[in-house]
Amino acid sequence: RSYCSGTAKPEGLLFRQLFEMESCTYTYLLADTKTREAVIIDPVLETIDRDLNLIKQLGLDLKVAVNTHCHADHITSSGLMKKRLVGLKSAISKYSGAAADIHLSEGDKITFGKHHLTVRKTPGHTDGCATFVLGDQSMAFTGDALLIRGCGRTDFQQGSAPKLYESIHQKIFTLPDECLVYPAHDYLGQTVSTVGEERRFNPRLTKTKEEFEKIMKNLNLPKPYKIDISVPANLVCGLHGV
Amino acid sequence: RSYCSGTAKPEGLLFRQLFEMESCTYTYLLADTKTREAVIIDPVLETIDRDLNLIKQLGLDLKVAVNTHCHADHITSSGLMKKRLVGLKSAISKYSGAAADIHLSEGDKITFGKHHLTVRKTPGHTDGCATFVLGDQSMAFTGDALLIRGCGRTDFQQGSAPKLYESIHQKIFTLPDECLVYPAHDYLGQTVSTVGEERRFNPRLTKTKEEFEKIMKNLNLPKPYKIDISVPANLVCGLHGV
Ligand SMILES: [Fe+2]
Ligand SMILES: [Fe+2]
Repeated sequence: RSYCSGTAKPEGLLFRQLFEMESCTYTYLLADTKTREAVIIDPVLETIDRDLNLIKQLGLDLKVAVNTHCHADHITSSGLMKKRLVGLKSAISKYSGAAADIHLSEGDKITFGKHHLTVRKTPGHTDGCATFVLGDQSMAFTGDALLIRGCGRTDFQQGSAPKLYESIHQKIFTLPDECLVYPAHDYLGQTVSTVGEERRFNPRLTKTKEEFEKIMKNLNLPKPYKIDISVPANLVCGLHGV
Repeated sequence: RSYCSGTAKPEGLLFRQLFEMESCTYTYLLADTKTREAVIIDPVLETIDRDLNLIKQLGLDLKVAVNTHCHADHITSSGLMKKRLVGLKSAISKYSGAAADIHLSEGDKITFGKHHLTVRKTPGHTDGCATFVLGDQSMAFTGDALLIRGCGRTDFQQGSAPKLYESIHQKIFTLPDECLVYPAHDYLGQTVSTVGEERRFNPRLTKTKEEFEKIMKNLNLPKPYKIDISVPANLVCGLHGV
């Protein structure tokens, strides 16, 4: 039962999962415990003070604020963080169409101390979705591509169900079974899953591609409440410019 | 800076943090990856289906459902879980006044496979509050005694600010700095802290006992919305009896 075995966290890694309750977004903070270099994934505007305060208390040196994609449900804090932290760089996939200091391509590495995240293109929810995989493949930050027992919607922002199906199967389900899956959202209070669990129990991804497309076509979800403000803002690093 | 270093999780431990959004309660699931024996801490009635489904999918053998104390803000699912899982035992501090299969005392061990939790009495929020410390002291489940940058209230259910101050200083702050602190609640989307961080940054506990008592006296919190149903129900393992 390797799909649910306990995974050892790499030595010298500081890791924090943070939650924003309005949009149910997870923000992740990773750092090298020795050099104190840090990366933040998907920081949210509403929780910028909480996050910067924690970074300060932990004595971290935040190098990069990276988004898994151009979010439609909340505004990123990466632009405002850059105003508050000298030297901080923003990063996002080059296929997102969003402005940032660093435009990420397949295989790029985001380095912090002795650790790094490798970029895997996982389009389908949006064209610019990326999954970030920790160097030793013990953790994957899947954004809105793969959620816990779910996946991101594909009905706006260049969404494509067949693309998403291929991305998850080729870029995420090929990771080790025990790799921890940390998504951008969860609406049921689940904090983490594993690749093995999702391969086995994800109700959408355990179906054929045709069945998956049908499921995604019939979700009938309402338009995200904040999309008309969030997307234009996130195209320029949030409300505060690049 | 050991207070924020990365902590290695014990080998062969499966660990899941789960969140109930209405009462902002954390439920924890711990298991031995080999024997599959498991313990659940502070399960909530509203999320029983999510939790039992996960336990089933992960192939776990749930032995004990334990509460850190008799909660006032939500109803435990331990009684109903016992109806659904043959052989499951409920546990709570003997000072809680609540019915359970196992009444816990200082130093008692809750064993699951090769792992165990040790019971430390941490009264002050209630008389029957306990903190559960993993065998290797890498994790502490502090209930409503110590919260992240906060602590439980002391204005009802035998609450006592001086008792809580002593409990935290003598029973929790004496753990290693890098010990992870997993509380029963968080209202700001924080998921974990460490003993070292709380010793250094907790705005209430870094004060003298006299200042702490003054802070706790002047919180002026509203009565918990569900206290009149939750406390009587939790005295008998939730709505469904022992
Ligand atoms: Fe999204
Ligand atoms: Fe409580």
